[in-house]
Amino acid sequence: MKYLITYDIQNDKRRKKISDELEAFGYRVNYSVFECELNHTKLKRLKEKLEELVDIKTDSLRFYHICENCIPKSFELCNKGEVFEKQDFFI
Amino acid sequence: MKYLITYDIQNDKRRKKISDELEAFGYRVNYSVFECELNHTKLKRLKEKLEELVDIKTDSLRFYHICENCIPKSFELCNKGEVFEKQDFFI
Repeated sequence: MKYLITYDIQNDKRRKKISDELEAFGYRVNYSVFECELNHTKLKRLKEKLEELVDIKTDSLRFYHICENCIPKSFELCNKGEVFEKQDFFI
Repeated sequence: MKYLITYDIQNDKRRKKISDELEAFGYRVNYSVFECELNHTKLKRLKEKLEELVDIKTDSLRFYHICENCIPKSFELCNKGEVFEKQDFFI
């Protein structure tokens, strides 16, 4: 399953911990936006980890499911590569 | 059609113009993330306006299509209301 994860985190230290966690599960495509490929197990584990880190009163952390039909209708307006572009580089 | 629009805009003045444009088409849900309900005509008009404003070399502006099947699988982890929650308030 593909998920787009966006956040607004008030505290710098907390924001760093959260983005580090997300880096382990996907790709940063904007400053506070990550594209992640998550099976049910990974989604559960990521949610649990982030729930420990966020301040639910002041922060915002949104998970958007993006299905295979939505991807071809999604696009980037500038030169930053397609959405959910394969990021693996084989040398 | 529902679109999630995320951006990284380097220049403050340009960022303000772009977010003002997006405010006219939808709801800001995170600092640089908007949820928009766009028919084909509105999508075309919004794209044209934003293409005039962005610097395609330094900025990033991503449109993610979110279909009716993806919405119930999407969620907010903190207390910031559901994704694509009906925002119209009738007094």
